[in-house]
Amino acid sequence: MTRKRFENPGCSVACALNEVGDWWSLLVIKQAMLGTRRFVDFQHSLGIAKNILCDRLSRLVENGVLVRVDVGEHGTRYEYRLTDKGRDLFAVVVALRQWNERWNGSKDDMRLVERGTGEPVGAVSVQNSAGEPLGVRDVLFVDENGQPLDRAV
Amino acid sequence: MTRKRFENPGCSVACALNEVGDWWSLLVIKQAMLGTRRFVDFQHSLGIAKNILCDRLSRLVENGVLVRVDVGEHGTRYEYRLTDKGRDLFAVVVALRQWNERWNGSKDDMRLVERGTGEPVGAVSVQNSAGEPLGVRDVLFVDENGQPLDRAV
Repeated sequence: MTRKRFENPGCSVACALNEVGDWWSLLVIKQAMLGTRRFVDFQHSLGIAKNILCDRLSRLVENGVLVRVDVGEHGTRYEYRLTDKGRDLFAVVVALRQWNERWNGSKDDMRLVERGTGEPVGAVSVQNSAGEPLGVRDVLFVDENGQPLDRAV
Repeated sequence: MTRKRFENPGCSVACALNEVGDWWSLLVIKQAMLGTRRFVDFQHSLGIAKNILCDRLSRLVENGVLVRVDVGEHGTRYEYRLTDKGRDLFAVVVALRQWNERWNGSKDDMRLVERGTGEPVGAVSVQNSAGEPLGVRDVLFVDENGQPLDRAV
């Protein structure tokens, strides 16, 4: 699967997708959030081919989502760690997980709880300034001057 | 770009990625959220090849993210509309947009405001039950019995 770059600088979603690259990249990021750091462990837990993993890790490092650290005391041994930018994809990953659980049933053997309290995390949602959840029908897409964009394109 | 299915039924993120398919699919969904409904309008606004668009729309319909509606009064004319399941990807799309804006600067000519108040929507985040934002370090991944999974895999 070759990488497709979207030539649409006017779309933040396309820009984000260029950087996160493809589905494999997002699974690598999710696995890094679980604590995986070594090449062989990514390979083992994701069941991903070596060359694809190698490629995706390089791109994520290139885009500043992961950083490659030499932790070898004797010789070289590399670890891949999330940067702040990488960790900031947490909401994207959790939103995808939760969407799947809502619509396809819980197929995951893993739950996400708050470290301090042990309580499940809440549903990720778009919210207004008062913290109330907003659906796509509760928002307007406006241009730079605040004028609503025609939604019936 | 052929479609890759992830054979990992134990991972909700992989399951979700199987359904949303690939980056093109997510851009189609984002465009549908903007109000686009007709094949030619998707094609025009995304700059996507006909055969790829055709394929992605079919899959999204198959997975219940979009529904194809015959709105032709004289002859057939189809529209693709988001289902509830499709609209529920709103948080994923907005989280990706916001992530891009935070880390790559705002490259989008579009802003998202609450319809009722005109105020910008808040930052999408993972939250605890009190509505406080949680980062990846504030959570634990636990198994079905509530036992923490080893994060140093």
